[in-house]
Amino acid sequence: MELKITCIPGDGIGPEIVREARKVLDSVAKSYGHRIQYTDILMGGASIDVHGIPLTEEAVETAKAADAVLMGSIGGDTTTSPWYKLPPNLRPEAGLLAIRKALNLFANLRPAILYEELAKACPLREEISAQGFDMLIMRELTGGLYFGDRKTIEENGIRKATDTLVYDENEIRRIAIKGFDIAKKRSKKVTSVDKANVLDSSRLWRSVVEEVAKNYPDVTLEHMLVDNCAMQLVKDPAQFDVILTENMFGDILSDEASMVTGSIGMLASASLNDTKFGLYEPSHGSAPDIAGKDIANPIATVLSAAMMLRFTFDLDKEADAVEAAVKHVLKEGYRTADIMSEGCKKVSCTQMGNLLVERI
Amino acid sequence: MELKITCIPGDGIGPEIVREARKVLDSVAKSYGHRIQYTDILMGGASIDVHGIPLTEEAVETAKAADAVLMGSIGGDTTTSPWYKLPPNLRPEAGLLAIRKALNLFANLRPAILYEELAKACPLREEISAQGFDMLIMRELTGGLYFGDRKTIEENGIRKATDTLVYDENEIRRIAIKGFDIAKKRSKKVTSVDKANVLDSSRLWRSVVEEVAKNYPDVTLEHMLVDNCAMQLVKDPAQFDVILTENMFGDILSDEASMVTGSIGMLASASLNDTKFGLYEPSHGSAPDIAGKDIANPIATVLSAAMMLRFTFDLDKEADAVEAAVKHVLKEGYRTADIMSEGCKKVSCTQMGNLLVERI
Ligand SMILES: CC(C)[C@H](C(=O)O)[C@@H](O)C(=O)O
Ligand SMILES: CC(C)[C@H](C(=O)O)[C@@H](O)C(=O)O
Repeated sequence: MELKITCIPGDGIGPEIVREARKVLDSVAKSYGHRIQYTDILMGGASIDVHGIPLTEEAVETAKAADAVLMGSIGGDTTTSPWYKLPPNLRPEAGLLAIRKALNLFANLRPAILYEELAKACPLREEISAQGFDMLIMRELTGGLYFGDRKTIEENGIRKATDTLVYDENEIRRIAIKGFDIAKKRSKKVTSVDKANVLDSSRLWRSVVEEVAKNYPDVTLEHMLVDNCAMQLVKDPAQFDVILTENMFGDILSDEASMVTGSIGMLASASLNDTKFGLYEPSHGSAPDIAGKDIANPIATVLSAAMMLRFTFDLDKEADAVEAAVKHVLKEGYRTADIMSEGCKKVSCTQMGNLLVERI
Repeated sequence: MELKITCIPGDGIGPEIVREARKVLDSVAKSYGHRIQYTDILMGGASIDVHGIPLTEEAVETAKAADAVLMGSIGGDTTTSPWYKLPPNLRPEAGLLAIRKALNLFANLRPAILYEELAKACPLREEISAQGFDMLIMRELTGGLYFGDRKTIEENGIRKATDTLVYDENEIRRIAIKGFDIAKKRSKKVTSVDKANVLDSSRLWRSVVEEVAKNYPDVTLEHMLVDNCAMQLVKDPAQFDVILTENMFGDILSDEASMVTGSIGMLASASLNDTKFGLYEPSHGSAPDIAGKDIANPIATVLSAAMMLRFTFDLDKEADAVEAAVKHVLKEGYRTADIMSEGCKKVSCTQMGNLLVERI
């Protein structure tokens, strides 16, 4: 099979971790008889430095021409980097929001898994973490407060800023369908999170989700208020299978959930549209403080590449092989600095990539 | 001194816990030579049952005529209670939002403290909880998504819902001042939480908070994105002193912080306006499942009454006495069911109230 992949190395540790993920993909291609054609595009700070803007139209066109996008991470230190002296719409993150919208990537999937081998890194007590957990946050990614109208005006000398949270039923329905579809292949439970006791958009969310649920009689649906969900993630993360929620709540809850696992350097993500096309990136940020030191953890990016094999290319066996390789090196005790613990063998970013390649 | 207090027993366990808090207040009044004049009003489900609406104008007037309001909790089981068959603006929670607005209670203070005696209930690992933590969430309570325009319309047969997030600089300034004022009396650090990489309202928030900070050279200000804050609360809660944030973020983060303490039955809150007037209520909900069983924990309400003594009446000695009594009974090993642990003595709601009264 021919795989056309656009890479966004990005900023900070981005280039290092994408390099290792490509090595792993290449090794998969070789073993299973596929051919990969890579193209690189600039985004975020890397694009600002060259083009003055965080994402060019040409870059978007290149991405569109591929089957999938593999991204590292973007952004820099917000207090010291010159990128953050620019107006908001020219900063690195604006590139990320722009590509999500341009490619219509409305469904953001963020698994939050407690890896048995890394259970010690979990910030929760053993009584809570002992049973393990494996949830997936299905976050709506192209609507809500992120893309509603906004303005800052001065009225009688008083500055006033407005953002708008808008959802229509179609936007809600398509993400709900993605949520139920994936729950069907997992533990068959959807927790839809909203703030229906306050927001109109949440009340519409809730009723559309209920309509969609009717087509999935074997999937259990429960509704949870966002404030309660923020509590439950800490109290009892094992109760969750698929968490289905809107853009801003998903941003907050998925980060909370990833921290609850204790190993954010391991967490992949996929952003999908209505076709097989997707953008795949680690859940963590660009970690400018450790960039270029070859100590970053490439596993989240490698697992994002595995999600790409599975979702975009339907190459389940190949995806399984990558995930098995990750489990394998963890079992053997290899760790990058961020997940290092006593008695394990500390390896660099490059070494981790090599170990994974050997085990494909 | 003459203290005029309006009580809102409310729904669920509300009446039981308010009764115990009143006993404690009465005992303080007796010991320190004050006279308390109580009036009761209905709110939430209790008001719906009598008046058909969750808050009457007369109730608001009664509250306004007092120096402070002591509230239990409102609301019922959202799936079984008939209150939740009513339209949203007639449900119990609408009463709470209405009284916040009517009394201009823009500053919501929620301390999240890890009590040494209850450290075992903390869901975090001992390495994290061992150093303890004591933070205060200063949440803006009368603006943002909670009170902006909202509407649900049908456009070409498609339902579409809109909520609006609005802040003007005056609303931000007055809550920021409250945040810095209280930080000055605590550990002198303010963490202002926003989503300035996306929202206009957050960018205005950030610049007004920076203006206010200039008048507090001895208080350290840091900015944190809301998604990162949701992570940091789990990873390292001890880093926080005062968290200053807008209404919706404050709703989510204060609940997360309260769960991180592991003893939400202990957490008080105060909602203040620009005068000494305030509404005081426990951080927890109405727990309809255990209502009327005399097993609820009255301590959060008792500590809310202590906040009232301190903030509204400037009776610091009296507030200290209440807080000391709480510490005392915990040291002696008395626990209500929610915070019970091995080797402690389990007591009812009434017994806990009596124990506190005896120790004033
Ligand atoms: C960088 C930022 C705009 C982005 C978001 O808020 O969506 C990030 O936090 C994420 O979750 O991918
Ligand atoms: C009941 C609800 C409307 C309320 C809120 O969201 O403010 C509650 O969660 C709170 O935090 O006091």
